[in-house]
Amino acid sequence: MSDRPLAIIAGAGDFPPRLAGLAAGGGRPVFIAALEGAAVPAAFGAADLQSYRLGQLGRLLEELRRRGITDLALIGSLPRPSFAALRPEASTLKYLPHFARAFRGGDDHLLRGVVTFFEGQGFTVHGPADIAPAMTAPLGPLGRRAASPAQKELIAEGFRLLGALSPFDVGQAAILADHRVIAIEAAEGTDAMIRRVADLVAAGRLRIAKGDGVLVKAPKDGQDLRVDMPAIGAETLRNVTAAGLSGIGLRAGRVLVGDATGLGKLADQSSLFVEGVAP
Amino acid sequence: MSDRPLAIIAGAGDFPPRLAGLAAGGGRPVFIAALEGAAVPAAFGAADLQSYRLGQLGRLLEELRRRGITDLALIGSLPRPSFAALRPEASTLKYLPHFARAFRGGDDHLLRGVVTFFEGQGFTVHGPADIAPAMTAPLGPLGRRAASPAQKELIAEGFRLLGALSPFDVGQAAILADHRVIAIEAAEGTDAMIRRVADLVAAGRLRIAKGDGVLVKAPKDGQDLRVDMPAIGAETLRNVTAAGLSGIGLRAGRVLVGDATGLGKLADQSSLFVEGVAP
Repeated sequence: MSDRPLAIIAGAGDFPPRLAGLAAGGGRPVFIAALEGAAVPAAFGAADLQSYRLGQLGRLLEELRRRGITDLALIGSLPRPSFAALRPEASTLKYLPHFARAFRGGDDHLLRGVVTFFEGQGFTVHGPADIAPAMTAPLGPLGRRAASPAQKELIAEGFRLLGALSPFDVGQAAILADHRVIAIEAAEGTDAMIRRVADLVAAGRLRIAKGDGVLVKAPKDGQDLRVDMPAIGAETLRNVTAAGLSGIGLRAGRVLVGDATGLGKLADQSSLFVEGVAP
Repeated sequence: MSDRPLAIIAGAGDFPPRLAGLAAGGGRPVFIAALEGAAVPAAFGAADLQSYRLGQLGRLLEELRRRGITDLALIGSLPRPSFAALRPEASTLKYLPHFARAFRGGDDHLLRGVVTFFEGQGFTVHGPADIAPAMTAPLGPLGRRAASPAQKELIAEGFRLLGALSPFDVGQAAILADHRVIAIEAAEGTDAMIRRVADLVAAGRLRIAKGDGVLVKAPKDGQDLRVDMPAIGAETLRNVTAAGLSGIGLRAGRVLVGDATGLGKLADQSSLFVEGVAP
């Protein structure tokens, strides 16, 4: 691991403090740029932290330069802001045209725009998997339960499906049961897709037998894993349980789980398997 | 068109009376077996009609044989019955094992089971597209509006997507907008998928510009078009309008529209394009 200082531009959720802790624990000086309205500063403990609005990008760049930081990571979720709500400061105004262009595309386009922006300013953007590989799905089960041969076959079919969708820049996740595809994620997101299956089951339109039903999740080909890694967490496990699925298959090393041990314990408590599968 | 007598086993909706009318109008003797709880006998006017419960399959077969009818069509929707609710008559009991097996799979499996059952009993099962090609999407626009070049490109991309999904026995429909895939249909059905997009738009999670946003619909490879043809109707157009889409692309000749002229008028009233595209 590098010992050069790292700035973590932090959004919401457990991943940013986890990444900060693992990077600092590895001996690396860490500076947290906490995004207001998303990151919770208290979650970072005694870390060196400053809060920024999105409209204070210019101020953030000045601070990074003052500190001689050139290595960056962006992690955590961020509500898609309205352009008007950014309230750019004077030092940020000159960067707006870049983001105005990026805003016109989809989320992927916006994220690519963020990466190219920082690269254009001379920074190197690192992915959480590079800085803290322990945050990604390991190979094999995260808890005590492992996928059965039948469940492994559903997972393999699911990954084949996601692979076939990848050229269309869609398909981070799918649900399979009873030898068929039940749901495919597009713009709605993984949690909404899982809840849809729970609703179909509740309405009697779908039956999922005990031990059947798996969620598969993997990045799309060409997805920028530095800033847009697929992720699961406790909420995913709760939704999967509510939908009556038996477990989750993840691309090992390519899906964020945050704390694999903690998630494995939660999987055990929920009688689910959560398993990393080799690419 | 053949002039041999045709039995139409009729479920719910406008398609069964439409098929009966077109077949009879072509000079063919038509017998309607109206499925109770689904078909509305009055919708068939003065047609030769008898009503049957699903549990009266034995009685229906006897009637068809008495009339010397060997040509069948099955059309219209049918709520998936509980096995207990079938209340089979004595003459139907011997056929139950066949359907018990078919019930264990998905809907496709059940429909295949129905076809193989009638074929095993010596009947020929015809598709609505064979009997009444006018019920399918014609080539070109159904109303006055035609897809623009940009909309045609979205439709083409959507058909490529559905083609890539076909080996996985899923993907009768998808929604694309802004050069990307917004929603993919699996177990939830087309209408639920369109409503999901309407909900994303209403929640501000998705913006669809005027003139953007298309629904594409096509059969899966290997789908049995005799008994399981994809279909759209007035409800589809209402949902598409509510979701703020600009129109619908259909595989010409391979998607049921019922009354192309009527649907074209509805498309005009809704400022939508509905267009059949060559396979």
